[in-house]
Amino acid sequence: MKSTMMHYPLTIAHLLERANRYFPGVEVVSLLPDKSLHRTDLGRLTTRARALCQALLGAGLKPGDRVATLMWNHYAHFEAYLGIPAAGGVLHPLNARLHHGDLEYIVNHAEDRFLIVDSALLPRFEEVKDKVNLERVFVAALGDASVPAGYENYEDLLAQGSDALAGYPQLDEYQPSGMCYTSGTTGRPRGVVYSHRSTIIHTYDVCLAGGIRPSDVGLPIVPMFHALAWVWPYIAALVGAKTVFAGPHTDPESIIELCRAEGVTFASGVPTVWLRVLEALQAAPEQARLRPGMRLLIAGSAVPESLLRAYDALGVEVIHSWGMTEVTSCGTAAILKPYFKDLPEDERYRLRAKQGYPLGFVEARVAVEGGKPVAPDGQSIGELQVRGPYVSGSYFKMAPDAEKFTADGWLRSGDVATVDREGFIKITDRSKDLIKSGGEWISSVDLENAIMAHPDVAEAAVIAAPHPQWDERPLAFVVPKQGSTVTADDIRRFIADKFAKWWLPDDYVFIDAIPRSSTGKFSKLTLRERYQSYFTSRARG
Amino acid sequence: MKSTMMHYPLTIAHLLERANRYFPGVEVVSLLPDKSLHRTDLGRLTTRARALCQALLGAGLKPGDRVATLMWNHYAHFEAYLGIPAAGGVLHPLNARLHHGDLEYIVNHAEDRFLIVDSALLPRFEEVKDKVNLERVFVAALGDASVPAGYENYEDLLAQGSDALAGYPQLDEYQPSGMCYTSGTTGRPRGVVYSHRSTIIHTYDVCLAGGIRPSDVGLPIVPMFHALAWVWPYIAALVGAKTVFAGPHTDPESIIELCRAEGVTFASGVPTVWLRVLEALQAAPEQARLRPGMRLLIAGSAVPESLLRAYDALGVEVIHSWGMTEVTSCGTAAILKPYFKDLPEDERYRLRAKQGYPLGFVEARVAVEGGKPVAPDGQSIGELQVRGPYVSGSYFKMAPDAEKFTADGWLRSGDVATVDREGFIKITDRSKDLIKSGGEWISSVDLENAIMAHPDVAEAAVIAAPHPQWDERPLAFVVPKQGSTVTADDIRRFIADKFAKWWLPDDYVFIDAIPRSSTGKFSKLTLRERYQSYFTSRARG
Repeated sequence: MKSTMMHYPLTIAHLLERANRYFPGVEVVSLLPDKSLHRTDLGRLTTRARALCQALLGAGLKPGDRVATLMWNHYAHFEAYLGIPAAGGVLHPLNARLHHGDLEYIVNHAEDRFLIVDSALLPRFEEVKDKVNLERVFVAALGDASVPAGYENYEDLLAQGSDALAGYPQLDEYQPSGMCYTSGTTGRPRGVVYSHRSTIIHTYDVCLAGGIRPSDVGLPIVPMFHALAWVWPYIAALVGAKTVFAGPHTDPESIIELCRAEGVTFASGVPTVWLRVLEALQAAPEQARLRPGMRLLIAGSAVPESLLRAYDALGVEVIHSWGMTEVTSCGTAAILKPYFKDLPEDERYRLRAKQGYPLGFVEARVAVEGGKPVAPDGQSIGELQVRGPYVSGSYFKMAPDAEKFTADGWLRSGDVATVDREGFIKITDRSKDLIKSGGEWISSVDLENAIMAHPDVAEAAVIAAPHPQWDERPLAFVVPKQGSTVTADDIRRFIADKFAKWWLPDDYVFIDAIPRSSTGKFSKLTLRERYQSYFTSRARG
Repeated sequence: MKSTMMHYPLTIAHLLERANRYFPGVEVVSLLPDKSLHRTDLGRLTTRARALCQALLGAGLKPGDRVATLMWNHYAHFEAYLGIPAAGGVLHPLNARLHHGDLEYIVNHAEDRFLIVDSALLPRFEEVKDKVNLERVFVAALGDASVPAGYENYEDLLAQGSDALAGYPQLDEYQPSGMCYTSGTTGRPRGVVYSHRSTIIHTYDVCLAGGIRPSDVGLPIVPMFHALAWVWPYIAALVGAKTVFAGPHTDPESIIELCRAEGVTFASGVPTVWLRVLEALQAAPEQARLRPGMRLLIAGSAVPESLLRAYDALGVEVIHSWGMTEVTSCGTAAILKPYFKDLPEDERYRLRAKQGYPLGFVEARVAVEGGKPVAPDGQSIGELQVRGPYVSGSYFKMAPDAEKFTADGWLRSGDVATVDREGFIKITDRSKDLIKSGGEWISSVDLENAIMAHPDVAEAAVIAAPHPQWDERPLAFVVPKQGSTVTADDIRRFIADKFAKWWLPDDYVFIDAIPRSSTGKFSKLTLRERYQSYFTSRARG
């Protein structure tokens, strides 16, 4: 017996046509690099995306050809998100914050054929221009910018496709639609290749995790070159929600002003961004406000409980999530279950400060060697491993790799975690961020969260620093809030009764800002490199 | 180039395991036929569904074997929704309201192998028992009922599977997971066979249309033997929402009491049910209340604008949808777009009284012969045609049929519709309900809605009655509200200025209730049959 259902693939071309037909009046607002506001709507944007699709086909694009983008978050990047996959091409957003050596490596490794670069990021491209082999480069001039001699104009490309679309090429849902490289703190970046199918199933799951409604106004602070911007462009096209882009402007003032002026109800991003926004909101409680009922989807690193509480006090709900480029974007979310409603408030916060349980079609386990799951007691630690229809099972042009995949087919996240009876996962550390002191493990994340709960602390990071006696000992980095005079002793006292004595950091270093990775997360790698002899040299000295 | 994503099928077994692992404490409440309340949770329910799966495999179930159910809405039916497809079987819910001749036909046509029947509906099975060829019949005894001699006990079946599940059979997402027969007002019922994939994509789309959150409490009033209960059981398992079942009790008092006692926030059903609930709410405004913010997903026939307004006044949002068994359940919904918010209130109601635009992956067109779309002017009429991953492209064991499918692969809904610039579809009639008077078309639905807007009218139906002079003329049927003394002249005056004079019904017949079809919709077929000589015999008389 067979199903009588039609064969109908899940493709991004469908989303493009859906948005064009049903959501033409839905706004798309972009704060451009020059701080001017660009306003369009999904009707015009999808008409241009169709033209891009047709023009790429006219330029000889074949299925699977990579079309790279080097752009901030704005309307033209949104056009690429729709038009490139609809043509059968592979959208390959390049991380604008990478070192030029990595950029060059990635463009060559991906074998990108075309590039669309915005005028603001053209200087970044010029750093690698001579070392990469692109067939054509199109420049999208933003605001008042113009296209320098020697480059093709993106608008001219669109004009070549501006006749009515002749029709999309036949698309198979398993064919590639996009790719992102991991920002890999160790080794070379690795390519993850998404399919139409994986992207769309993921889009549905993020919609449910974020409680997305057509009336939402979304602000994806996460860069569009990172994990497909947590698929916001596809969400907007699926449900018909208004989009607000911040371009390169992720400073608190720009974000707060965009939220206010455009009525943002849903935003996404890494904790560091929302920590700074919170500080700004608290510094000027009379002027600065977010819309009550607004939701923030935060992932990328652990969300401190203090952040959840502080935003709740402002009427803003933080949805704590965990994700990876390899899981497309979000893989879990700490969404309270209906029967948690009678739990004490502290217990609810404790649960929300975990990374939560898997999104709809993700399977997750916390396991030790051999795939054996740890006891779901919230204490036993293992590695978080996942599988599902939008989880990567390999890397582009790389041999299978036991460090990244288990023998029975799960992705190894590299995150150390516990899982409780309710299935709530808590990341205790990146494998490499665990501190091994005298043969025992210390969680740097737990220490960081405790330090960040101090009212005078803006940011904190804890690393494992090599130690002559204990192998490794925790070393804490603290960014005090503006105007604060908090001391190491203050913090030491503040966290003293929250941990066993041997867990407490051996020292506190006060700095102006925690270094950021190219995706805006705290870069503990940078701190580890810079401070690797902190204890050993002192011992010798 | 290939995507690096894992191959991971979309199956109902995943939903079963997900609910078991992550939502064990989520409640499932059933009002049983004897009016007792049965309470369980997704932990126990999915454990039993696993046992059902294993027991069916033990009984020799092969992939694609049909397992029929003849049950009201309750926990045991939910178990079947999960356990049968997880075993690779095909869940085949039988419509308990069908004539025994149709029941017999359907069981034999589907070649059902096993049957699970609840004790309340066993008498219905016994009407056809000797005419069908089932290998085994299991009786689920509800409440205090027992299993009569000569039948196997459903609980004994579960006990055979109660050991830990050895593992699910390998499932392909395209393999069949369920089937429903259309209630076909003309010709024999036709079988529609859903797949795991189609069911799950549909589940996502209904979640988005209904704005479903894990905190929702859902009451699917639509029977579980009709269009997979609009996939509520799969929604609950996907997002972890509480379920409330009304068993066979769809009277307003039972519904209102269940909503109050169990905190229902989302319910689904046909307009007739919610018309009666509304009447009861209005008759006792002090005692009876629904939860403010509650949403009603209503489909099955057109929702009169008066119903939208009346529920809004009670703080309840009606989401007007259109669907068919062939589209799994809902295919469109009248969800306001963000840029409609500035429209005048009357215009917003006018839009919400349409059937709206397609759900996520449905494609819809309003077309005339040859598939040519009509102008999107909200006036030109054509047939509503749809396609998509959860739309049926054929019927079980039937040759392709030009009356049901177009040559270019769309399902013909048989509904006459218009579509406006915003893509909002408005069903003006079933093809066979259009009234052809003197060569011109009159919409029976428009007349019905206008009559139902009269404050003293509870229900109304308008049919095409054969007429000696005009071929057909509209004949109206009116059910006055209790205690009302409304007359035909009152209604005539009330609608006189809303239509061209020749549109107005030639006569009004006052009756106690509009006859219902087996799915609870108004049965205009019954009225047409009963009143076919209304005008012709009078002309002769």
